[in-house]
Formats: sequence, structure tokens, C-alpha cells
Amino acid sequence: MNDRIYAAFEQQQKDRGINLFEVKEKMKALKIETPSWGYGDSGTRFKVFQQEGVPRNPFEKMEDAAVVHKLTGVCPTVAIHIPWDQVDDYSKLKAHAEELGIAIGAVNPNLFQDDDYKFGSITNASSAIRKKATAHLLECIDIARQTGSKELSLWLADGTNYPGQADIRKRKHWMYECLADMYTALDDDMRLLIEYKFFEPAFYHTDLADWGMAYNLAQKLGPQAEVLVDTGHHAQGVNIEHIVAYLLDERRLGGFHFNSRKYADDDLIVGAHNPYELFLIFYQILDALQDSDQHVRKTAENIAYMLDQCHNLEPKIPAMIRSVMNVQTYYAKALLINYDEVKKAQEKGDVLACEAAVREAFEIDVRPLLYAVREEMNVPAEPLEAYQESGYGEKILARGKGGASW
Amino acid sequence: MNDRIYAAFEQQQKDRGINLFEVKEKMKALKIETPSWGYGDSGTRFKVFQQEGVPRNPFEKMEDAAVVHKLTGVCPTVAIHIPWDQVDDYSKLKAHAEELGIAIGAVNPNLFQDDDYKFGSITNASSAIRKKATAHLLECIDIARQTGSKELSLWLADGTNYPGQADIRKRKHWMYECLADMYTALDDDMRLLIEYKFFEPAFYHTDLADWGMAYNLAQKLGPQAEVLVDTGHHAQGVNIEHIVAYLLDERRLGGFHFNSRKYADDDLIVGAHNPYELFLIFYQILDALQDSDQHVRKTAENIAYMLDQCHNLEPKIPAMIRSVMNVQTYYAKALLINYDEVKKAQEKGDVLACEAAVREAFEIDVRPLLYAVREEMNVPAEPLEAYQESGYGEKILARGKGGASW
Amino acid sequence: MNDRIYAAFEQQQKDRGINLFEVKEKMKALKIETPSWGYGDSGTRFKVFQQEGVPRNPFEKMEDAAVVHKLTGVCPTVAIHIPWDQVDDYSKLKAHAEELGIAIGAVNPNLFQDDDYKFGSITNASSAIRKKATAHLLECIDIARQTGSKELSLWLADGTNYPGQADIRKRKHWMYECLADMYTALDDDMRLLIEYKFFEPAFYHTDLADWGMAYNLAQKLGPQAEVLVDTGHHAQGVNIEHIVAYLLDERRLGGFHFNSRKYADDDLIVGAHNPYELFLIFYQILDALQDSDQHVRKTAENIAYMLDQCHNLEPKIPAMIRSVMNVQTYYAKALLINYDEVKKAQEKGDVLACEAAVREAFEIDVRPLLYAVREEMNVPAEPLEAYQESGYGEKILARGKGGASW
Amino acid sequence: MNDRIYAAFEQQQKDRGINLFEVKEKMKALKIETPSWGYGDSGTRFKVFQQEGVPRNPFEKMEDAAVVHKLTGVCPTVAIHIPWDQVDDYSKLKAHAEELGIAIGAVNPNLFQDDDYKFGSITNASSAIRKKATAHLLECIDIARQTGSKELSLWLADGTNYPGQADIRKRKHWMYECLADMYTALDDDMRLLIEYKFFEPAFYHTDLADWGMAYNLAQKLGPQAEVLVDTGHHAQGVNIEHIVAYLLDERRLGGFHFNSRKYADDDLIVGAHNPYELFLIFYQILDALQDSDQHVRKTAENIAYMLDQCHNLEPKIPAMIRSVMNVQTYYAKALLINYDEVKKAQEKGDVLACEAAVREAFEIDVRPLLYAVREEMNVPAEPLEAYQESGYGEKILARGKGGASW
Repeated sequence: MNDRIYAAFEQQQKDRGINLFEVKEKMKALKIETPSWGYGDSGTRFKVFQQEGVPRNPFEKMEDAAVVHKLTGVCPTVAIHIPWDQVDDYSKLKAHAEELGIAIGAVNPNLFQDDDYKFGSITNASSAIRKKATAHLLECIDIARQTGSKELSLWLADGTNYPGQADIRKRKHWMYECLADMYTALDDDMRLLIEYKFFEPAFYHTDLADWGMAYNLAQKLGPQAEVLVDTGHHAQGVNIEHIVAYLLDERRLGGFHFNSRKYADDDLIVGAHNPYELFLIFYQILDALQDSDQHVRKTAENIAYMLDQCHNLEPKIPAMIRSVMNVQTYYAKALLINYDEVKKAQEKGDVLACEAAVREAFEIDVRPLLYAVREEMNVPAEPLEAYQESGYGEKILARGKGGASW
Repeated sequence: MNDRIYAAFEQQQKDRGINLFEVKEKMKALKIETPSWGYGDSGTRFKVFQQEGVPRNPFEKMEDAAVVHKLTGVCPTVAIHIPWDQVDDYSKLKAHAEELGIAIGAVNPNLFQDDDYKFGSITNASSAIRKKATAHLLECIDIARQTGSKELSLWLADGTNYPGQADIRKRKHWMYECLADMYTALDDDMRLLIEYKFFEPAFYHTDLADWGMAYNLAQKLGPQAEVLVDTGHHAQGVNIEHIVAYLLDERRLGGFHFNSRKYADDDLIVGAHNPYELFLIFYQILDALQDSDQHVRKTAENIAYMLDQCHNLEPKIPAMIRSVMNVQTYYAKALLINYDEVKKAQEKGDVLACEAAVREAFEIDVRPLLYAVREEMNVPAEPLEAYQESGYGEKILARGKGGASW
Repeated sequence: MNDRIYAAFEQQQKDRGINLFEVKEKMKALKIETPSWGYGDSGTRFKVFQQEGVPRNPFEKMEDAAVVHKLTGVCPTVAIHIPWDQVDDYSKLKAHAEELGIAIGAVNPNLFQDDDYKFGSITNASSAIRKKATAHLLECIDIARQTGSKELSLWLADGTNYPGQADIRKRKHWMYECLADMYTALDDDMRLLIEYKFFEPAFYHTDLADWGMAYNLAQKLGPQAEVLVDTGHHAQGVNIEHIVAYLLDERRLGGFHFNSRKYADDDLIVGAHNPYELFLIFYQILDALQDSDQHVRKTAENIAYMLDQCHNLEPKIPAMIRSVMNVQTYYAKALLINYDEVKKAQEKGDVLACEAAVREAFEIDVRPLLYAVREEMNVPAEPLEAYQESGYGEKILARGKGGASW
Repeated sequence: MNDRIYAAFEQQQKDRGINLFEVKEKMKALKIETPSWGYGDSGTRFKVFQQEGVPRNPFEKMEDAAVVHKLTGVCPTVAIHIPWDQVDDYSKLKAHAEELGIAIGAVNPNLFQDDDYKFGSITNASSAIRKKATAHLLECIDIARQTGSKELSLWLADGTNYPGQADIRKRKHWMYECLADMYTALDDDMRLLIEYKFFEPAFYHTDLADWGMAYNLAQKLGPQAEVLVDTGHHAQGVNIEHIVAYLLDERRLGGFHFNSRKYADDDLIVGAHNPYELFLIFYQILDALQDSDQHVRKTAENIAYMLDQCHNLEPKIPAMIRSVMNVQTYYAKALLINYDEVKKAQEKGDVLACEAAVREAFEIDVRPLLYAVREEMNVPAEPLEAYQESGYGEKILARGKGGASW
């Protein structure tokens, strides 16, 4: 990009009444957590195509994540998944991350890959299995303490495949009881992010199937429990930004698992399908940041933005960088909405003007802004190109095939 | 049906450990409210095919509804819709219904057909329009007092068609404020049933879009507010019986608007599409009726079963009778589930046995049971045939075309 | 826009290897037909909110359409719908249009609003009704001759609401027979565009439910029959651009009915929901325009781009202008794809580079291009603002409420 | 079941005008092919819960399949999947099956698990990979010759995850070319069954995405190519029985992969979710068997009924038996439709009577019929109970865990 283009962009935003300085500050403040498992091999039930150079252990995952952070400047933390990232000494993993300039973020328990969980984990009819599952949750809190993590991200795969397979109401109670035990064990500065999912791997009923169930559970558990929205976990057509606005208003939106999908939970690169939806989610969030209620504002400020994707076909690190850039792109566009203009049009009941005021920002090419922000942050203007030139991709080929996977 | 068939049925159920006497008592206790608007003309946005003989006013609707009750014995009440059923003197309408052997059931406000409601009723940015809408809600409570109704059924069509069209969070607050005013005005023995809908007529966001929003609202309003589940108001694939079980467990399931659909909110005859879903809904309800918690049991006992359908192509009264019979059929099947067997299979984690125990009841031909129940209730064994023979259908042709419609 | 911004844009495209002159020529060649019915009142089954100033007859609809053409320069034709646009003398309507600088485009028969069509038109079990429907189709060809139209757009609402309601296979044969009669009557330079629809107003089965059925029918009828894709007529998740590519390759894509939707057939402003989909449709079309097979290229060149929308809440003329601008916007973006770059990335199997090459064009702000094109076409740079300033909207208020509607 | 119940059933059907003798003959003629892979371990991308006793090789799969046939009498063939069922000497596998009283059915090529197929098999941009894939198809024809199989079942997983990833139209041509090579190699008495799928494992576009694409391909290939309908491979809401009727009328329906689903391609036990759909599919088939066109009748007669399921949680052999029984149940119900009654109601345009005539048969408890048929076939009346009593399930536990899987 040359200066001429940026100057034109700057003028354009000035004319629109946008404070570019503020926009840039907000861009710099945006942090996106990458998931350790996104660096490993993944696939569908039909096939996992292994890639060369995939990290072989949690330490190497941290190294890859550090590269993403180095090149983007906005990914200072990495979510871990236990036991995929189980290590003997978490202080070592923490130190390793810190040496690399990053930190460990949310801790994700795994309640779906133990043979005992075939018929449920914290919803299992067996109290022994529920206890085992709860113990794992408590272990994750302990790991969080060791890694300095403040978020516990809970995705519950529990559910059934056939009508009658289990007692839905009893499972609901068991789930609450186990999570109440977990909640009690949280440190005061920790929060529990509760994720819901429409279906898969359960094909008849999923115990935590929608935002309403996650929200209600959070309400019962207490103020440290919040809802985590995975953008791929909804029925077709569901208005996700409406749910986001709703949860913000109720002060229960804790975070996101970003990804995109066209069909089910496809876990594709965020923004790759229907990017307008991502923009509209940020529109609701940025609107809430201007709410008259400070609690709503605070909720919006504390949202944990996390990626949760599977790069089945594409190389992992570049895919992660692309994802981060996509989030930045649509966040930037939402920042360029002239909120006063929207509100004025809303007050007049001018539907077309309302819609135009929101969409106009979507049409703006924000690359000049992103370049400027990156320059100010001392990171490459084109992180993907910088990665290609870095030689890191070639270097890790020495790891060979058969690295970490689910 | 001859005695031989019934004897075979009776023996079969005895062998299965089913107490037929209890089943029959429960069948007799099942009441299904029919909607006054279901007797009038309806259609799609493309065309309303008017039928001859459609009632021309609320009084004639009561007459048709009374025929349905006379022939089925299980439809003693009729839901009314204001202003579609507006009359000068509601005591006259009430008396008319009572003379016909029926009563007026739920009162349904209309917040979607006034020009003022183009951009919302109780969510409208104009406080004057919100007041007008609230006044209508209060008027409906007053009408309920006059008609002796104990249920207010609220379906809110409010929403937007385009992103940015309105402030989603503000509308949420306005909605709550208006409904709080309404709630306060309820008599102690009245309840407010809050209906949600996925989409239509709003095509971007619907202010009350799912059970979670209706439930949360009911929680805030108080114990007289409950959720109303319309079986056609969900995204494709949503597990409705799960929602039913969930709301029962939370003691917030107030009632149903029954109908069936293959696509959107098709408002077809209940049980005509995917009848297994209707059966599974009743399975959850009947299971909750055996809950150890008396509040859950009481919630299940107080469910208001209502039809909400549009008979676009088929004649109205026979369609209503068929709908009632369908509800009875799948309720009867759910009553024939051997719940102990299901629970035993669940305890053993025997997925196939669980599923089989539930589905076995679905496979039973319950017509012998329905015939027996009807005989004991002194209504025709075949209500539809009895209607055809009654001559009522011919009689009402004198009403001509162009009767009541939306 | 100032020259500086355009200069920056021009440089940017030059650097990307885009031939802006060619792009502008293609922009000028793009024609979008507006629908006469889009200027009238419309709504949902629940309510039609009438607007002031709606045209009261086909002549006034032409006047409104002419304004849209005057301000955009790309809408020289208007689709008509019979009998909504029935007039005594079509030569007068044609002359009126021509005086206004436009022409009559596709003729759309109506096979869904006559009482006889309750159980089907050309699929009706009654041969008399099928003949009547066929006669209407022939009448529409005759009208096309009078109006100089070359396209007959057929949307068939026929279908059933319940399993068993009709003989699906027989209806298929009847449909073919009637359409074969219609096809035979076409002039050599006319074409029949066959539209399919997933559901509505039929709620169980729709006789022409998907592209496969429309395509197969077109194959049987002959080369003058092609498929018309309405962007709102698919199940959720269906990949419409794949169908577009497929039909292009089979040389059977005849045209589009553009609109957008989030749920069912919402008929919202095209590009208002998931605009990326519209862009991807154009990507497939523009890619086919470079096909090595001249027949594929010719098919792509002859696509009839038509709007088919309902402006339930927003004012009609501005909504139409906005729609036209949206089509231009996403068409322009697709023109800015560097197709060579995409192909090179495809050859390398570089998934991320492929995706980036396509999406990069989507991110470009094409307003400088649109302004330049409009300037060269001697139409206002901002057609919507020009409309607001024209005073036309105020002038037509004299028409009052209660104009044309379905 | 006692004689009394059967006598009552017999009388009931006689009264309905049903020829029970014919019905029973048709029940005996129904054959259902089970899939070798359905006896092995399977799961989701998240976890495969291994079961004890799963067959360790193709020979043991045949043994399990033989048990299913022995107990049901209607599963004389087993579909195989190459290379999952690759053996050194197919004549030995064939002989083994024959000794067990069964035969090898459809041969299923695998074009999705080789690393080379990451970006497509017969649609791959590399001609070398396309040749390799074609060679595998030819190999499968050869295997079919060795096993005496007459059906080649082709499911193509090919597709892309991102817009732009590949040239959709070129892939369409490559696919055709490879399949044309395959088609040419077919023996005269073989047929190629082409399966389509909405999505998964491809998440943006699937090269064979719907029935229209499979049908068009079959048309081009020739009369030995037909469409295979997998009941789980459609978008939500799609009317599968309509597609079935359509393909029958076009004489291109070759077979089914039966399973059920609530969400995506869940591969659950057929009939376990929305069993009415399965019944309606058989209604269309049985209706076509009475068509006046002998070619349509012949197509219906030659349908290959095959199961394609994954038993992730439930034991494999009982799940297969249950599936077979479900198919029999809904086939039996469809046989009990009084087709004359349906047609008469259709002729009268009596929607309610039409629907009732179809659904009445669905409500009939067909277990008396199934018991009678099984008795006449000399198989156990309750195959599942017979399996439990057989001790086979215990015997195979000696195989241990870790048997065959995908």
C-alpha cells in the first residue's frame, strides 16, 4: 500500500465523521486467542489427511502459536485442551510459552473421548462416571491455576442418539450438580464459559443444545459463569447476532469460538462463509459498548475472542493467520459504522437508511486501516506473506508427518 | 370395530403390563382447545381460497366449535382472537357458547394487524404506539374477565427485516416493560402464555425468537407467566420434545399451539407430518407426570393443549375433528408406553431396548382404545363419519362464501 | 467522491493487473429488469401494510420503473405479470413504456390466484382446468408478442399440502403436456424460463421443487426452454452458485430472480442478507464467460437478470434502486477478481491462495468504480440521493393509499 | 402373538379390502442388503467407541451378516467396500459367504481415504490421480465379477471446502470422463448406482450434491446407470418421497441406502427418526408398481434396498436386525394402503379423505402380519429375541476389541 491510498482512506473516514485515532486504538486492543488443537491434524469421520510439520507436542504447538502472534501482534494467548495438551509439568509449558512471548489462555476440559463417556460424562447415569468427569473438571481448574489461565471453556458433547435412550430431565439435574461442584472450585478471578451446540456428536438430543440452556445454567451457577457462543453451533437460519445482543443485554456473554460453516459445524476459517454475519456480530458488540448501562458495557469489554477451527485441507499456521486477519477485517468494518447515523435513521423509522448506514461500513476496504495499525504495532503489514518469507513453514517440515491430532 | 378386536387389544395391553382403566381415564381427561380462527378462511400471501359455509361472525364460530365438541367430547373450550372476535357484548358471546355446551378459552391479543404496528407494537420506538399496544393487552385481560377465560395467549409478531433496522436491545427492554404492565393487571387465577417464533412475518430478527427468550421473560415477569410452544415455530431439526422436557423441569411450560409443518410455519393439521414428533412430545409430558417433584407434575397437569392451524385447502370443521383425533391418537400411544420398561432399559444402558420400548407403543393401533373411550364418553366412535352424516356441513352452506378470515 | 480516491482505486487495480476499461464496459452492459409487482403493495399472510403513492395501474407502474431506469441507467425493461398487469390494449402499455424510455420485459403468467387452481393449474386432475391454465399460458405468449417481449417466466405454485393428496407422477405428466403445448406456441426468438421453488404456497410437495426438475423439463421441451434461478427458492444451505455453474455448463441457465432471504422465500432486497453469496454467483458466471466452449459463454451472455422482491416495509422505488445498486456492487466486485491468479492457485492446489484470490475482490470498495461508470453513463453517481432530491416520491403521494397489490 | 390377535388382524384387513395373501407374498419377496461396514466399529470425528466382538476381517463380517439373514430371512446379500473388504482371493470370500447361505451384493469403491484424494479423486486436477481413481473403479468391477455382484454403488466424497478452491465446471467434466470409462467397462448385466450427497466431508461444494446431478450423469452414461438415494443425504425439509416418485417416473431409481437422521447425515437406524417418511417412500414405490407403464413398474421392481448405517453406540448385529425389522414394518404398512380408496379420494379432490386413506395404513399395527410372514418363512417371529437367545453375541466377544473399522 502506498501513502496515497491511506491518505484517501483517511480523508474518506474523516468525511464520514469517523475518529480514526479511536478506531486504531480499538484495533490494537483487539485480542484473539488461538487454539492449540488448531495447529494439529484434524479431519472428518471419513479421513484425516495428515500434514507434514504438524507439532508433535504441546511445546511445539506453543511455538507455532507464537509465530502467529509475532506476525499479527494480536494473539498473545493460546487455548489448551486437556488431555490433548497434558504435560507432566504445566509450569514448564507456561514458562515455554512466556519465553516465546505468549501465554496460556482458556483451559478446555475434554469430556468426550474417554470410553467411560459413551453414554455421557457429567450427565451419565453412573454416579461414578459423573464423579470422574467432575474430577477432570476440577483438575482443569487446577491446571488453570498452574498456567495462570482465567477462563475455563466447557463444551459438553453429552447427548443421546435415540428417543428414550436416557432420561432427559435427570441428566439435566446431574449436569447442574457436577457443574455446581466445578463452579464452587473456581478462583474468584476465574470464569466458566459454557458452550452450547445444536448437534454432533449426539444425533438426537444434546444436553446443552442452545443458548437458552447455557444461559439458564449460567444464571443458576452464579456471576462467574457465562455463555460461550460458537458461531458454528446453531440450526440453519438462526440469527446469531440477535443472540449476541440478547446475551450482552443480560450480561452473560462470555466469549466466542469463531469459525464459519455453510452446513453443520464445519469448523472452517472464520469469515470464509457468509462474512456479513461476522460483521453483524461485531456490530451488536460495538453497539453494546456504547450502552448506557455500565454492566452491559463491561460485559462487552470482557468478551473472550477465541478461534476454534479445523484446518482439514489447508496448512495450519497460514490458516490461523488468515483467520486472525479475517476477524480483524470484519471488526474493523464494524468499527467504521457511523453509529450516530444508524441511530438517527432508526429514530426516523427509515428502514433503508438504517440498513444502508450499517452496510456502508461493510463495503469499505479496510486494508489501508489494517496496514496502518500493523505498522503502528510493529508487525508486518501482510502477515501471511511475512510468514511465507520467514522460512518457518519449511523449518517445521523436519517434524515429519503424524504430529498431534485429536 | 367389533368386540373381538377390542378383546384382542385388551389382552395385548394386559400382557404388556398396561393398566387400561387408567389409560382410559387419562384419555377422557385430555382436553383440546380449538381456535375460533381455525373455522374461518385462511391462506398464504399468494391466495386465500374462500370456502362456502365459513362462519360470518364469532357467534357462528362458536356454533361450529360446539359441533366439534359434541362429536369428540374433548373440545369444551374455544380460543378467541381480538379483534377478529370482537363483539359489543362479550357476556352475550359467553352465554351463546355456554348454551352450545362450550366455553371461551384463551384470549389472544392481536399486535400485528394495525397499521401502527408496522415497525413493532410493544417494541415500537414510539412510546405512544407501545402504550396503544399495552392498552390492547389490558383490554384483552378485561375481555378475559368477561368471558371467564383464564389464559392470555401472547404471540408477538414484532421484529425487523433488515440488519440495523432497529435497536434490538432497546426493543427487548420496551417489550419487557409493556408485558410487566400487562402482567400486573392479571387476576390471580389468570396466566400469561408467551409464545415464541423462529421467523415470519419478521424476516431478519424476531423479538421473541425462541424458547429461551420466552422463558427468560416469563422468569422475570413472575409465576403466572409461562411459555407456550407452537410446534411449527422452530428452526429445522430443533428437538422440540427436548425443549418440552426442559421447560417442564423448569416448571414453565404453559401450553401448546399444535399444528404440523414440513418447512416453515405451515400450520397444517397436527400429526399430518412427522407424527412421531407429536408422540415424543407426549412421551416427555407423560414422563414428567411421574416426576418425583410435585411442582413438575403440576406443571405437566396444567398444560393448555390448543390447536392453532390454518385449513387452506381442506374443509374447516372436518379438519378440526381430524386434528383432535390425531392428538388423541398420539396421546393414546404415549400412554401405552411401558414407562417402567423404558427406565429399566435406561438403567442398563441398553440403547436398543430403550428405543424399542418407546417405539413399540407408537406401533400399536390405538383405534380400539379410542373407540372404547368414545363409547364410554357417549360420543360417536368415528367423529368424522358422524359429522358427514350429521348434515351440518350442508346446512352451513347457506352462509355462502366470504365468511370470517384474518 | 473526489478524483484522488478514484486515482488511488485506478492505481490499485492496475497493480492487481485488472483492465479497468474492460471492467467498466462490462458494468455498462449489465442490465437488470425490475418487476412491475415490486412497485405495488405486498406483505405477508398476516398483513399488507399499504403505502401511500403506490401505482394504481400498469401505466403508473411503468412510470415508476422508468424513474428507476432514468436514475440508474441499467433497468431498461420491466417484467409484467398477467393478470396483475392486464390491460385492454397492450400496444398502449408498450407505447407508454417506450415513451418513458423503457420497454416491457418478461411476461409472467399467473397460475395460482384463480379459484380453479386450488388443487393445481397445469397439474390439476381436471383436464378442463388444465386446458384453462394452458390457455392462459398461450394468452401470455400472445401478450408477449404484443409487448415485444422475448421471455416468458413461468413460476408454478402447484403442489400439495398432504401426503396422498394427489398423484405426484400423473401431475408430472400433465405438467409436461401443458408446457409442451406452450412451448410449441413460442416464437422462434422467444424463450421459456422455468422457475422452481422449494416450498410455498404448497407445503408438502411442490411439482417443480428444485433445479433438477426444472432442468429435466427444459431438456424435454427443447432449446428454447431454460431454467430460472430465484435466489430465495432453495432449502437452507443449498449451494446456489454450484447450481449456477452446473446449469451454465449444461447451457440451460436462462435467468435469475434476484432477492435475498435469511429464512424461507423472504423476498428481501437482493444483497441485504449474505451478500457474499451474490458475489459468488457472479464469480461463477464471469468464470463461465471465459469458458473455452462458446456455447457455455453464450449461455452466460444471455442470462436474464431480473429482480423479484417484495418491499413490505420499505418504500418501493428507493428499495428498487437500492437493489439495483446492490447487484451492481457485487457484480463489480466479481469483475475485479483476478481470474488468472485464481487459476494459478488452483493449479498449485493452494487452497488458501485460491480462497484469498476470490475473496480479495470482495473486500474491494467498488464505489469509485461505480461512480466512474455512472458518470460515463450520464446518470447520477448516487441514484438514491438523486431520487430523494427529485421530488418524485412526494409527487406520487397524490395517488393516495390502496394502489396495486397482489 | 396368539391366534386370536392374528384372526382379528386378518378380519380387519379383509374388511378393508386388502388381499392379505398378496401382501404376504410381497413381504416375502422384499430383500434388504446389509453393509459389511455396518458390522464394524464407527463413530464421529470426535471419537470411535470400540465395541467388543466386532469382526476382524471380511470373513467374520460375512459370518455376522449370515446371522442377520438366518434370523430375518430377508438379507441374503452383503454389500462390500473396497479396500475395507479387500482380500487376496475374492473367490474365497464368495465361497465363504455362500457356505453361510448368503452372497456378496453391491461392491462399493472407496474414493476418499487415500492421501492422493485430498483434493478430489475422479475430479482431481491431476490426471494421474484421476487415472488412479478410475483404475480403482475398474478394479471394483473386476471384483464384482469375481464375487458375482451385479451392482456397483458409487458414493463420491469429492468436493471443496472454500469458494474458489477449484474449478467446479472442470471437475464436472473430469468426473463424467472417468465414470464414462467405468461405465464402458461394466458387464451387460451390471448396473452402476450413483449416490449423491448434500455435504460432508466436503463443506463448500460437493461435486455430486443432489439427485439432479446424479440423474443427469446417469442419463449421459446410459441405461445401466441409475440413481441411488441415501435417505440421509438431503437438506433439511427436502421431500425425499417426491424425488423417489420423480426418479421412478424417469425410470432412473436404482436403489436406496437406508438410514435415518434428525440433523445431517447421522446414519442412525432406519425408521428411528420420522418413520413416517420411510412409509411415504414405500407408498410412492408401491404406487409406481401399479403404474400403467411397464418400464416404471420394472424400475420399481428392480430397486436395490440396502442399509447404510453406523452403529456408534448400539451393538452392531442387533442394530442391523432392528433396522431390517423397521424396513419390514414400514413396507408392510405401505402394503396395507388401500390404493383404490386413495385414488377415489384423489379423483374427488377430497384432501382429508386422501390423507386419511394413506395414513390409516400407517396406524395399523403390522406385527401380526410380520409374525405370520416370518412363520411362513421359517424364521423366528421375534428375530431380536432369537438373537439374544442364540448366544452368538457372547460367542463373538472372543474376538476382543479393535476389530474392523473405517
